[in-house]
Amino acid sequence: MIAETTNSELFKRVKASFMRQGMMQNLGAQLLRVEPGLCEVSLQHSDRVSQQQGGFHGGAMGALADIAGGYAALTAVPSDLEVTTVEYKINFLASFGSGELRAIGRVVKAGKRIIVTTAEVTHIDASGKQTACAVMQQTIVPVPKTY
Amino acid sequence: MIAETTNSELFKRVKASFMRQGMMQNLGAQLLRVEPGLCEVSLQHSDRVSQQQGGFHGGAMGALADIAGGYAALTAVPSDLEVTTVEYKINFLASFGSGELRAIGRVVKAGKRIIVTTAEVTHIDASGKQTACAVMQQTIVPVPKTY
Amino acid sequence: MIAETTNSELFKRVKASFMRQGMMQNLGAQLLRVEPGLCEVSLQHSDRVSQQQGGFHGGAMGALADIAGGYAALTAVPSDLEVTTVEYKINFLASFGSGELRAIGRVVKAGKRIIVTTAEVTHIDASGKQTACAVMQQTIVPVPKTY
Amino acid sequence: MIAETTNSELFKRVKASFMRQGMMQNLGAQLLRVEPGLCEVSLQHSDRVSQQQGGFHGGAMGALADIAGGYAALTAVPSDLEVTTVEYKINFLASFGSGELRAIGRVVKAGKRIIVTTAEVTHIDASGKQTACAVMQQTIVPVPKTY
Repeated sequence: MIAETTNSELFKRVKASFMRQGMMQNLGAQLLRVEPGLCEVSLQHSDRVSQQQGGFHGGAMGALADIAGGYAALTAVPSDLEVTTVEYKINFLASFGSGELRAIGRVVKAGKRIIVTTAEVTHIDASGKQTACAVMQQTIVPVPKTY
Repeated sequence: MIAETTNSELFKRVKASFMRQGMMQNLGAQLLRVEPGLCEVSLQHSDRVSQQQGGFHGGAMGALADIAGGYAALTAVPSDLEVTTVEYKINFLASFGSGELRAIGRVVKAGKRIIVTTAEVTHIDASGKQTACAVMQQTIVPVPKTY
Repeated sequence: MIAETTNSELFKRVKASFMRQGMMQNLGAQLLRVEPGLCEVSLQHSDRVSQQQGGFHGGAMGALADIAGGYAALTAVPSDLEVTTVEYKINFLASFGSGELRAIGRVVKAGKRIIVTTAEVTHIDASGKQTACAVMQQTIVPVPKTY
Repeated sequence: MIAETTNSELFKRVKASFMRQGMMQNLGAQLLRVEPGLCEVSLQHSDRVSQQQGGFHGGAMGALADIAGGYAALTAVPSDLEVTTVEYKINFLASFGSGELRAIGRVVKAGKRIIVTTAEVTHIDASGKQTACAVMQQTIVPVPKTY
C-alpha cells in the first residue's frame, strides 16, 4: 500500500464507490491500491466467505476479482461516469481455508464503449507465502453515475 | 417448492452441503429445489448483497449462479463425492434494488471427469413479475468428499 | 429448412452478410435458418475443419457457434447496422470425426447497447442421431455497417 | 523464432501434432515457437480467414488462440498424452483487414487433472506495428494419445 496512491484523487474516487458496496463491507473486503488502470483489493478468510469444505467460497473469489477489475476500469473513464460489469469469466486454481486473498485488476483495453480487464487472485498465508488462486477476464461498460 | 423434492434424499444431500457454506448463510441464500440435474436457490435483496448503486451485487449474482450450477452437478455424481467449480462465466442482464433473485442451475452434460452446467438468474419483484438477470455457463469436476 | 424463413427479408439480410465471410466459405459452412432472435448454420466434416485426432477442430466449432449467435443478434438490430462479437465462451462436450455439425444461436437479451446470445452445437451422424457437441455464451454490440 | 526452440524435442512434438490439424493447414497457420509452458503461432490475413467486413474472422482469432493455449498446455503433460480443450473464453479488442496475427499461449497452472492457460493475440502490420487483438482464458485436460 503506497502513500501516494492511497491519497490520490483516483483512490478517493474508487474508495467512495467501494464504501457504498454493502456486500464488500459484509464480506470484509478492503481497498488497498488504485493506480491508472489498476486496482488491488483484499479479503481475510472468515466464516462469512467460506464454502462447505471451509475454503474461500468461489463466489467470494469471484466477487473480489469482479470489483478489482471493475475499479481498475473505473480509473479509465471520466469522473462523471460509473462502470458496470457486462460479464466475467473466472478460473479457480486453488483454495485455502485461512489467510488472505489479494485481487489485482488490470485494464487490458479501455475503449470508449467497452473496457476489457483481467484480474489475478492470490492467496497469502500467515508466513507470507503467495499462491495463485484464480484468474479472471471481464467486460465492462461505462454507465451514467446515479448517486 | 415441491414437497417430494424437499424431502428427497437428493435434497437432503445438497442441503447438508449448502448449510455448511458460511457465505451462503451470510448472504441469506436459501435452497429451494433439488432434482436430478437441477438445483434452485433464492436470495432476498438486503444491504448484505448490494453494490454501490443499491442493486444486487454482481458478486452475489455470481455466487448464487455458481452454487445453483454446482449443486445441480452434485446430483450427477456418486454420493461419496463432492464437486468443485473449475470455472464459470456469467453475463449480467439487469439489476434490481429490491425483491428476490432465483437461480436455477441445470446439468448440460455429466461426463465422468467434467460436468458442464448452465444457470439462469431471475428477479422477482413484490408483484411477482419476473425478469431475467443473468445467465451463467460453468465447468465442474468431481472431487473426494473431505468432511 | 423452412421455405418461409429462407425467403424472408431477415434470411436475405443475414445471407448477404454470411456470403461475404471468406472463412465460412472456406470451411464450407451453410446458412440454414433465420428467424427473429434465432439463426441456424451447418458444417460438414472435412479435412478443412479437422484437428490432430481427425475430429472437428474446436476452432471450427467455435467459429460456427460464433456466427450462429452473431447472426441471431443481427436479427435484433435495425437494418442499417451490423454487429460485432465482443467476446464468447464455449464449452466442448463431444467430438466426432465425420458427419455434420448444426449450430443454433439464440438471443437471450437484446439491449440497445449490448446483446447477449447463446448457441448450441449439435452433431448429426449418417443415421440422423444427434449428440450435443458444444454450448456457447456470447456478448455482441451493434456497429455501423461499413459496406 | 529461435533456433534452439525450433530444434528442440518440445518443438518437434508440438509440430507433429500441429501438422496433423487439417484446419490449421487450411487457414494457413504456422507454428513459430515452443518452450516449456509457452507456444507461439501465426496467421497471415487472406480470404480464407476473413469476415464480412474483410477483417480477420473472430473464429480465426479464436482458433489461433485455442491452439496457442492448447499447445502451451501440451508442453506440460507427459509425452504419451495429448490434450483437449474443455472450454475457452475470448475477448476481441481490435480487427484488421491485412497483415499478420501472432498468438502466444501461456500455462497459468498445470494441475494433474486441469491445466489453465491464457493467450494473447497481437496484430502486426506491414511496418511492424503491433496492436493487441484478443485475449483468451482456457481450460485444458490431458487425454490419451490416439494416434
